[in-house]
Amino acid sequence: MKVVLGLSGGMDSATLLGYYLRQGAEAHCCSFLYGSKHSAYETQAASDVVRFYKERGFKIETKMFDLRQAFQAFQSNLLKSGGEIPEGHYNDASMSKTVVPGRNLVIAAVMAGYAESIGADCIALGVHAGDHHIYPDCRPEFIAALEATLEYSTEGRLRIEAPFLYKTKTEILYIGYHLTPAVPYHLTRTCYKDQQYSCGKCGSCVERLEAFAELGLKDPIMYET
Amino acid sequence: MKVVLGLSGGMDSATLLGYYLRQGAEAHCCSFLYGSKHSAYETQAASDVVRFYKERGFKIETKMFDLRQAFQAFQSNLLKSGGEIPEGHYNDASMSKTVVPGRNLVIAAVMAGYAESIGADCIALGVHAGDHHIYPDCRPEFIAALEATLEYSTEGRLRIEAPFLYKTKTEILYIGYHLTPAVPYHLTRTCYKDQQYSCGKCGSCVERLEAFAELGLKDPIMYET
Repeated sequence: MKVVLGLSGGMDSATLLGYYLRQGAEAHCCSFLYGSKHSAYETQAASDVVRFYKERGFKIETKMFDLRQAFQAFQSNLLKSGGEIPEGHYNDASMSKTVVPGRNLVIAAVMAGYAESIGADCIALGVHAGDHHIYPDCRPEFIAALEATLEYSTEGRLRIEAPFLYKTKTEILYIGYHLTPAVPYHLTRTCYKDQQYSCGKCGSCVERLEAFAELGLKDPIMYET
Repeated sequence: MKVVLGLSGGMDSATLLGYYLRQGAEAHCCSFLYGSKHSAYETQAASDVVRFYKERGFKIETKMFDLRQAFQAFQSNLLKSGGEIPEGHYNDASMSKTVVPGRNLVIAAVMAGYAESIGADCIALGVHAGDHHIYPDCRPEFIAALEATLEYSTEGRLRIEAPFLYKTKTEILYIGYHLTPAVPYHLTRTCYKDQQYSCGKCGSCVERLEAFAELGLKDPIMYET
């Protein structure tokens, strides 16, 4: 199977990559520059994760899509053009400021065009249940509608897979931790902030730390605190 | 009403703009650079059409999105990276080489993100019945699925309009010709080829010329023949 998947460098997409490689898929990883504050760290993490797997003999192609000019016109605190990244738990209303309007739709659309161009079987997204509350473009009904849209636009040549759609962050970590090889979480980047060491306070960091704690594991990355 | 619409500089999108301006809408026109062979001429045409309406007191904002880097990885003869533009009628199988995989999905996704960012009521696409045969991303079932996708991703804040979805090119021309002011078709660009004067032979030109002929009108643009 030839799969085009989004690889941000975070936990979910790194697990997604490990999940497909374990199945013997030929993985084409797409990364996106869209002007997020944490893009340099994400890009480094994505690159480190890919190297980890390549060194172990897995077949991976990578493609970077630069959408910064387009996203300049989009409003979100996640973007360099927006306000401060809020701190606290994802359930807090403030985290909704990190929604980037239509991000997943744009990303999925570009991945689909690329996937059709290289004759891939499917595109895979790392969306999961923990994102449903805040991010409308991570919800099952969105993914289902997007799947129908892609089916029509590609005349049935392309499908979407979102294997973690109903999984929590903790369940994703559990899956990745038990894959062979285990997903290299020490190389992933989760923090939304523009700083080398993760803050441990933004919604994204809080959710990550909770997942490790729930499984009784120590998060292997460095935090500023 | 605040509408975000795609303006390529062709007949359909120029008519779309005239149609919404006539209704008193505040129009935000999005143009896209995606590496098509005819982009320089399209861009000029779009700019000329906007100037025509602005000089008559209509309120229009324009936004150019540069997606060339992303589309570099896409396969199509419509793109600079692809083969020759085929000649002949749209019904010929060869015209399918001008399909750009997922183009309308990417474009609509970017328009939607922008529309949400500026608080627009809807995005409008100039897709029409003449495109249904060749281009899957112009068909009613695609537009319906995309509408559902957008509704979910924006939590109902944004809708799609495609007023010409069931109209032929001839009917669109009829509508635009009878608007006040009439759509400035002399400023529009339809040809797919990379040359100043329209070829009159590619599927796009053939369809345009047929529309004018069916209404007994003379096409006001210059052709190389």
